[in-house]
Amino acid sequence: MFTTINELIKIQKKIAPYIHETPVMSSEYFNDISGCKAVFKCENFQKMGAFKMRGAMNAVMSLDDESRSRGVITHSSGNFGQAVALAARNLGIKAVIVMPSNAPAVKKAAIAGYGAEIIECEPTNEARASVTARISKESGAVILHPSNQKEVIDGNASAAIELINFCNDASTELDAIITPVGGGGLLAGTALAAKGLIPEIEVFAGEPSGADDAYRSLKEGVIQASVAPHTIADGLKTQLGECNFPIIQKYVNEIILVEEDEIVSAMQIIWERMKLVIEPSSAVAPAAILKRPELFKDKNVGIILSGGNVQLDKLPF
Amino acid sequence: MFTTINELIKIQKKIAPYIHETPVMSSEYFNDISGCKAVFKCENFQKMGAFKMRGAMNAVMSLDDESRSRGVITHSSGNFGQAVALAARNLGIKAVIVMPSNAPAVKKAAIAGYGAEIIECEPTNEARASVTARISKESGAVILHPSNQKEVIDGNASAAIELINFCNDASTELDAIITPVGGGGLLAGTALAAKGLIPEIEVFAGEPSGADDAYRSLKEGVIQASVAPHTIADGLKTQLGECNFPIIQKYVNEIILVEEDEIVSAMQIIWERMKLVIEPSSAVAPAAILKRPELFKDKNVGIILSGGNVQLDKLPF
Repeated sequence: MFTTINELIKIQKKIAPYIHETPVMSSEYFNDISGCKAVFKCENFQKMGAFKMRGAMNAVMSLDDESRSRGVITHSSGNFGQAVALAARNLGIKAVIVMPSNAPAVKKAAIAGYGAEIIECEPTNEARASVTARISKESGAVILHPSNQKEVIDGNASAAIELINFCNDASTELDAIITPVGGGGLLAGTALAAKGLIPEIEVFAGEPSGADDAYRSLKEGVIQASVAPHTIADGLKTQLGECNFPIIQKYVNEIILVEEDEIVSAMQIIWERMKLVIEPSSAVAPAAILKRPELFKDKNVGIILSGGNVQLDKLPF
Repeated sequence: MFTTINELIKIQKKIAPYIHETPVMSSEYFNDISGCKAVFKCENFQKMGAFKMRGAMNAVMSLDDESRSRGVITHSSGNFGQAVALAARNLGIKAVIVMPSNAPAVKKAAIAGYGAEIIECEPTNEARASVTARISKESGAVILHPSNQKEVIDGNASAAIELINFCNDASTELDAIITPVGGGGLLAGTALAAKGLIPEIEVFAGEPSGADDAYRSLKEGVIQASVAPHTIADGLKTQLGECNFPIIQKYVNEIILVEEDEIVSAMQIIWERMKLVIEPSSAVAPAAILKRPELFKDKNVGIILSGGNVQLDKLPF
């Protein structure tokens, strides 16, 4: 049973004190080149720099007192580790983040700065999962998943609720909404919120060709494995999960595949013309619109820019 | 006689339909490392990407019908050319922009895109000025100066008015305000507006050590020549002008010199932590605060981020 829109609105209000209501931006230039009327929900300005804060905050707030006393654990080389660390600190809960030993020092420093304990492991998916499971078993810490968990999906839905409320205040109704898709937590949450508030809205996602498990899964009707994904949009290499898939199957009109050069080109447009620092994963949604403009022509389109955590010494331009 | 605050408020309202009321941002991280409470006026989100739009718009709106029929001309290798082109197009006025032949193609394209005529000249200050004067004499086009002109200064003042109004709405009164200084048009306009609205406010500027004519001028009490300025903050290489200097002398508490590595470091902080694409000139103001934090400790400080036009293939990090 999917979470209802009334429940999602309650969750959005519940987490609101701990997150930013991020700005909504637009660009005449993007409208000119795409042919649609786009509004960008700027989750790059979210606390810790990504929408992940929303799901993490709802996940920790959903724990009962006994679970909170045991603390939380997750494995992450990226944004979700920071999000859990900060969300847990907000509530005075202990957090353990399992990170691959080769994770960038800047990410380790950010997580340590939020007061979480870092456990290093071998840089493989298997090691990350097994170390996390072992520590959870020993300490009782509650495992949080970056995308494939109901509370995470429900928290992520708050970005779309804020965006649609913003548009309502401006007397604009969205015809379509689009996110990037990796594990599916942002897409599923966005779909639940958007369809709940605007039943006739179209829901799209962009996905890198080099990490196309969601595209293939939607086509086949069964979750397809993500094997050796390769893309600059490193936040989207995650495996699509079984909590997200039924929501995506029910509500998503189409997943649009984009190539690496299209991601970089869209990223450059958002940086140069909109002056927004976004990470490559965020550029996948506008890249999808520019790839298939006929799907969006003259429509009011909401775009979730998922985050802005980049290493400035490793830019693709 | 300086323009009064009542006149500046009228001008701000007059140009408002043609410019963006840009967002105001803050950063817990910047407050932590600086010790002040900073609000950033994001002119990188202004039309054509810089505050220059404000002064250019007021300058063209201030022309009488006869002058408008003759059109406007300016020489610029940077933001002011784009600002004049767009401001003139807004009113259906012909604009000629004299550009050095080695100006980046992307800037020429932007100016041509706004419908202005581009005249190329030798890449020297002398050639730019003499070509501009000759064409103005032949065609009657009105010469606009990027910084050293009353109407430009008065238009630039609107950014500070918006920022102070925003702070008032948030029940915060600024104790200090800071801009970068090059030709002095932004600093002078900001000083007029800020002192007019908050007489006890302190006004500061940041200036690159490699282009320190405003610093030297303030110290000597006479305008000092800018000879062979060299700085990554290329928007600040302009000579301080005699329209701006008396305002700066009267109202500016101190001009703070910053080194090149301090500019790049501040720029990186704003990009990485605030997710804002700003140009090096914009980073000079936050760099000045980080250099002299004792001047700003515990104060509410307004920072004008002047613009965001950068070439992504020529970043310093």
